[in-house]
Formats: sequence, C-alpha cells, structure tokens
Amino acid sequence: MSLDKEFKEVRLSGEQVFSGDLLHVYRDEVQLPDGIKSKREYIKHPGASVIIPYTKSGEIILIRQYRYPTQKIMLELPAGKIDPGENPKESIDRELAEETGYGAHFIKKLGKIHSCVGYSDEIVYLFWGSSLYENNLEEDEGENIVKEPMPIEEAMQKVFQGQITDAKTTIGLFWADRILHNEKFREKLGIEI
Amino acid sequence: MSLDKEFKEVRLSGEQVFSGDLLHVYRDEVQLPDGIKSKREYIKHPGASVIIPYTKSGEIILIRQYRYPTQKIMLELPAGKIDPGENPKESIDRELAEETGYGAHFIKKLGKIHSCVGYSDEIVYLFWGSSLYENNLEEDEGENIVKEPMPIEEAMQKVFQGQITDAKTTIGLFWADRILHNEKFREKLGIEI
Repeated sequence: MSLDKEFKEVRLSGEQVFSGDLLHVYRDEVQLPDGIKSKREYIKHPGASVIIPYTKSGEIILIRQYRYPTQKIMLELPAGKIDPGENPKESIDRELAEETGYGAHFIKKLGKIHSCVGYSDEIVYLFWGSSLYENNLEEDEGENIVKEPMPIEEAMQKVFQGQITDAKTTIGLFWADRILHNEKFREKLGIEI
Repeated sequence: MSLDKEFKEVRLSGEQVFSGDLLHVYRDEVQLPDGIKSKREYIKHPGASVIIPYTKSGEIILIRQYRYPTQKIMLELPAGKIDPGENPKESIDRELAEETGYGAHFIKKLGKIHSCVGYSDEIVYLFWGSSLYENNLEEDEGENIVKEPMPIEEAMQKVFQGQITDAKTTIGLFWADRILHNEKFREKLGIEI
C-alpha cells in the first residue's frame, strides 16, 4: 500500500526501559519515511473495556472514584483493564459486576478507542449494556467506588460544563445520547430500550 | 470535604523511575482511605491541545499521520503537546499552522479531556477554530502529515464505522456535530458559522 510506504516508521532496534507492576515502557529507534532516524518512547498496554450500563428506569450508571494520576475524584463509566486470558467482553462483564453489582443480559460492542496515540498502544473497547440484573461480586481491594446513576441529559450537561472529562466516558456518553435520542441509529445498531 | 476524605489516596513516598525525551514515569507509595498501602505508577505529561478547524466551505480539517505506538496511520484532528512556556491557546495556534498551514481568526475553548486517567495526568484542551486564514509554518522535522478535509457527516460516519478511533478526535467530532446541527447549542457557546 503506497500510503504505508509514505508514512510508515520502521523499527531499527529497541529496548524495554521500564517494567513496573502496571506500566511497561519501551524506547525504539526508528527510521522515518524520509530516511531520518528518530526515537519513539511508548507504553505497551493490555487494553481495556468500558460499558454504558443502562438501567430499566432509564438511567446511565456512572461511578465516582479517585484517580491518583490526576489527583481528582472523577465521574466515569465502569471500565477496567483486560486481565490475562480475558477477551474484552469477559473483561467488561467482570468490571461491571465488580464496580456496580450488575450484569447485563444485553451487551453490544459499539467501537474502539485509542486513548493516547502519541505514547501508548492502549485500545479501549466500548460496550452498550442493558437488561441489567443484580450480580454482586466482591470489590477489588482498594477500590473505593460510589455509584451515581443519572439520566443521559444530566450526564451530557456534566460533559458540556466540564464536570465529566474522562475521555472514554465522554465518548461513551456521546454514543449513549445518540442511541437514546435517535431511533433510526438505535435500530441500525440492533439495540432495544 | 467529606468526599475527599472518603476517596483520597495520600502520597507517602515516591520516585521517578524513568526519564526519557518524551515520557516521565513515576512510582509513588500511597495510603488508601481504608489504611491499606499501595503503589501507583503514572506518567507526568505537560498537557496537549486539539482543535476543530472549520473551513469557510463547511468542512472539518482532519489530518492523516502514522502513529508509531499503535502501528497505524490514523485520522485525527490537529493536535500536539504544549511546549514549555506556552499556554494551551498558543500551543494550538502553533500546531494548527504546522499541521494544516492555517490560522484561525475565531478560536473558542470548549473543554478539557483527561486522556487516560489510570496512568497519566495528561489534560487535552479542546478548541473550536473558524474564520481560517493561510498561515504556513515549516513542518516539524519528521512529521509526515496529509490534510483530509471533510464534511462533519462524513467524519461522524467514520467514527461510527470505526475508521476514526483516536479519543481526542472522536470527542472533538461529537462536539462539532452538535455545534453544527444545533443552533441553540451553538449560540450558547457564542460560535458563529
């Protein structure tokens, strides 16, 4: 593919420069299409899943939790890293139960999100979840999470007023807003509410 | 604030575990609200800016570029890291010129995005830009970028079909879609098109 030839950066060599419990950082030497050599530093990430849990009473379940890197309590959709051996769907079933105490009889994959293309290969898989049922699992140790269900209109207000800033959550809510307000769009996706 | 007490993770100690040209990685020991000690690994990032450039003929300027961490050619809104001494607005003026050859007479800050709250403090500032004028700057060395202007309807199709997956771009396009299709929303933001 000619576009590939025009754009692609070819790996010449590389090393892992940090291996932590969570973060795995690499530095590669690459050759750019114009022949110049450069360095690329990036994180290899196992991927994550995020879900829009839609209740029978017509609310989206958001969760409030402290995020150490941002030093803020944030309002987010339930989400989490994909564990070894899990696929994105299994991962989100588990996270939904751990973080909200629900399961979803109806789950639909909506799309993929690249969180920070400049320095990470992380992909977040976005799911819609409805026909919820109680499915309590034990919380992860050290996870302090409070559920905050709200109508989509309230959640969108928080997006536009800057009270919701998490990227995967913002994207999930924009999808949810369209799913809930555009019948044709919803039908095309095969989602019943 | 009682919520803070219930959620906050207190830093006990910490160290920088990797310092590269681009990435700066830290590992802190923290005390969770329930008294348990834990480790947090995260990246300190200078922040970034992203812009929705809207042309006089009614198109959004997207750019195509290779992203080494994802090993993909991606379709994105113009964006870039904030350089030392720059504020977000100055940063996006520069990036817009470097990546598209345009300046924007009208620029409006829309909101903030936390890209990956699990392991980075990165904030991306989202701007609307219109009344564009030619403003060619030299490209950054090693940046191979092709402009791809398109109507918002086409860009949204690419979001829904999975051809646009970059988080900041997806969020910017959802905002643009509402700005362009909802007059009341647009007026509230003080944007003229």
